[in-house]
Amino acid sequence: MVPGLMWCVWGGVGAAAAMSLTLITASADGQNPASPLVVARQGSFLVGGTVVTNPGTFDPRDPNPTPSGQTVHGDHAYVQYQIPVSPRRLPLVMWHGGAQFSKTWETTPDGRDGFQNIFLRRDFSIYILDQPRSGRASRTAHLAARQPPQGRFGEQAIFTQFRLGMWPDFFPGVQFSHDPAVLDQWWRQQVPNTDELDQKVFVDATVALFEKIGPAILLTHSASGVMGWVTATRTDNVKGIVAYEPGGFLFPEGEVPPTVPTSAGETIGTPVAGSAFQKLTRFPIQIVYGDNIPAQPSPIPALDGWRGRLEMARRFVAAVNAHGGDAELLHLPARGVYGNTHFPFSDLNNVRIADLLTEFLHKKKLDVP
Amino acid sequence: MVPGLMWCVWGGVGAAAAMSLTLITASADGQNPASPLVVARQGSFLVGGTVVTNPGTFDPRDPNPTPSGQTVHGDHAYVQYQIPVSPRRLPLVMWHGGAQFSKTWETTPDGRDGFQNIFLRRDFSIYILDQPRSGRASRTAHLAARQPPQGRFGEQAIFTQFRLGMWPDFFPGVQFSHDPAVLDQWWRQQVPNTDELDQKVFVDATVALFEKIGPAILLTHSASGVMGWVTATRTDNVKGIVAYEPGGFLFPEGEVPPTVPTSAGETIGTPVAGSAFQKLTRFPIQIVYGDNIPAQPSPIPALDGWRGRLEMARRFVAAVNAHGGDAELLHLPARGVYGNTHFPFSDLNNVRIADLLTEFLHKKKLDVP
Repeated sequence: MVPGLMWCVWGGVGAAAAMSLTLITASADGQNPASPLVVARQGSFLVGGTVVTNPGTFDPRDPNPTPSGQTVHGDHAYVQYQIPVSPRRLPLVMWHGGAQFSKTWETTPDGRDGFQNIFLRRDFSIYILDQPRSGRASRTAHLAARQPPQGRFGEQAIFTQFRLGMWPDFFPGVQFSHDPAVLDQWWRQQVPNTDELDQKVFVDATVALFEKIGPAILLTHSASGVMGWVTATRTDNVKGIVAYEPGGFLFPEGEVPPTVPTSAGETIGTPVAGSAFQKLTRFPIQIVYGDNIPAQPSPIPALDGWRGRLEMARRFVAAVNAHGGDAELLHLPARGVYGNTHFPFSDLNNVRIADLLTEFLHKKKLDVP
Repeated sequence: MVPGLMWCVWGGVGAAAAMSLTLITASADGQNPASPLVVARQGSFLVGGTVVTNPGTFDPRDPNPTPSGQTVHGDHAYVQYQIPVSPRRLPLVMWHGGAQFSKTWETTPDGRDGFQNIFLRRDFSIYILDQPRSGRASRTAHLAARQPPQGRFGEQAIFTQFRLGMWPDFFPGVQFSHDPAVLDQWWRQQVPNTDELDQKVFVDATVALFEKIGPAILLTHSASGVMGWVTATRTDNVKGIVAYEPGGFLFPEGEVPPTVPTSAGETIGTPVAGSAFQKLTRFPIQIVYGDNIPAQPSPIPALDGWRGRLEMARRFVAAVNAHGGDAELLHLPARGVYGNTHFPFSDLNNVRIADLLTEFLHKKKLDVP
C-alpha cells in the first residue's frame, strides 16, 4: 500500500460502474517519492525569441522552395511546467547550465527524483526551461544564414506542406486556430541545430518567461548563474535566486574586486551600472557550492577554477549586503554536507540538498501558500 | 470547485496539523482537462546510443584538454514518461516526425492538452521521445569529428571539472553513484548540436526503448512513420501501431507496388525481406490521414505529395492484410471528420481524434487494464 493513498468509492461522480477513486495527500509527504504526484495542470510552451524574414517572395506552388520570403522564428526558450493542486504563491523557475538542458532538474542519472519532482511534491509550481539554441529550443533565428536551403522546412512552406492552407490563407474549416500567436508557437516548436552561445539571447528569453508567468523564484546552475543575475536586473518578477555553483558575478562599476588568480586563469568580476546592481538587493539570494574545491591554490586547473569562483562568490555576497541586500553563501562542507559535485541537486544526497533549499525558502518567506 | 475533486481530512496520515488531503478521480473523466492528473511516477532517461573514443591519452591536469583519449556518448534517444496510478497494460510510446520533437504530443500550439495529457487522463502510461540528434537527444556521437575541440565539455574533462573525481577515480565519498550506467546517463544528458538524419541511428534508439520498457503501443507521425514499421521488424515489443500521416511504407521484396507519380515526385514503396514484413502482420495497425489531400492530381507539390502517400498507404494496408495482418486506413474526411492538418493530434478537434484512437485501441483490445 502506498503511504498517503487509499481506495474508496464516491458515488457522486458520473455513472461509470468500475470507476476507481483515489484519496491522495496533495502535499503531505514531500520526502516520499512513492506517493503519487497530483498535478492540477501541466504543459509546455515556447517563450521569447525573435523572427527573421528573408528577403524575396515566397510561392507556395514552388516545388523546391528556397528561403526567399520565408520567416525563421527562433531564439526562444522552451518551458515545461507543472502546477500542483494547491501551489505555493511563488513558482520555482529552474535554469540549466552550459551544454545541459532541463534534464539537470529531472530524473537523476541514477534514476531518482530530481528537483523537478521533489519540489512539485513540496507544492511548488515548477517551470523547467531549455535555454535558446539548445535542447527543445534549438531553433536559432540565424537558421537561414547558417544552413543550406531547406524548402520543405521553411515556415511558409510547411504552412502548405502540413496543410494549414495555401499560404497565406487558411483552408476553410481547417482545424487550426487563426490566432497569429498560435502559428508563432507552432513554427517555434520545430528544432534545427543551432547556434553560438549568446548571453543576451538567453537572458531575453528568460526575461520573457518571467514577464509571462509573474513573480517567481529562480534557480540557476553554473553558466546560467551570471545570466540569472542579469535577468534580475531586467525584470521585477525575480523574487529570489538560489544559484548552484554559479560561474560569474556582477559588481557595481568602480567596485569590481581584484581578480583571483588560479591555475585555470583569472577569476574576474563583471561590472554593471550601480542602478542595475541595486536591483540585486531587492530579494533574497543564496549561493551554493559543493565539495572538493581546493582550499589552497592547486595545480589542477579543472579544480582550481572553482576556488576562484567560490572566492568571488564571497565578494559578491559581501557587495550585495553592503548595498542593503540579503545574500548568503552556503558552502556545503561548511554545513557538514560532504561529497557534492557541480550538480548538488542531482547528487546522491539531493534530498538533503532539497531540504536545505526548503529551509532557505522558508526562512526568507518565499514558500508562503 | 474542480469537478472530481473534493477536500477532506484524513487523520491517519502523519502528524502535520494543516495537512490537506484531496479526493481525486484517478480515471473517471479523461475528457475533462480541468481535473487534476494523478501520476504514480514520472521521469526521464536516455536510451540506446553509441560511444566513440578518440585516439590518444587524456590528462585531467591539462589546462586545455583536447578530444584526445576522451569519449563521446551520443546518438541515444531522450525519453520522458508518466505512469498513472492504475495504468492500462500497454503504454503508449509517442514518436515525433521530422524537424520536430516531443512537443508534437504536448500542449498544443493554442495551449490545450495534447495527446500526452489526454491519454494520461485515459490511464495510459505515456512515453514521449526526442529521437537521436534532435531536441533533448541532440548529442551526436560524431561530435568530435564535427566540432572544434571543446576541452571543458569533453567527457573525461567534465568528470574532473564537475568534481566527480580526478579521472578515472571518483573522489572518496563523492555524492555520485559509481555505477557505470549512471555515468553513462550523466554524459548523455549533455546537448551539443548535431548531425545528419540517419534512419538506422533513430531506429536503433527506439528499439532500445522498447527493449527497456517491454510491450507497448507505438504512435508515429510523418517521418517517424516508416521508422515505426522498421522498429516493429526489429523488436517483438511493438503490440500496435497507429501512424499519423506516415511518409513511407515497407513491402515484401518482389511485391513493391508501382510508384505513384505526383507533382512532388514519385511516391515509392520500400522493399524489405518477406520475413521482416511478416512481423508487421502480428499486431493491429491503423494509419490516419487528415483533410485537404487532393483527390485528383494537383499542380501544387506541397499538397499533391500527400495524395501519393495516401494511395501508397492503401496499398500497404492491402499488403499487410493479404499476408494475414490486421491493418486499416482511417482517412478522417471519410469518417466525417474535416479540416485536419498534418498534425491531427494537436488540431482544434484533437479530442475527437483522441476519441477515434481510443475507439481503435478498444476495438483491438489494446486498452486492457
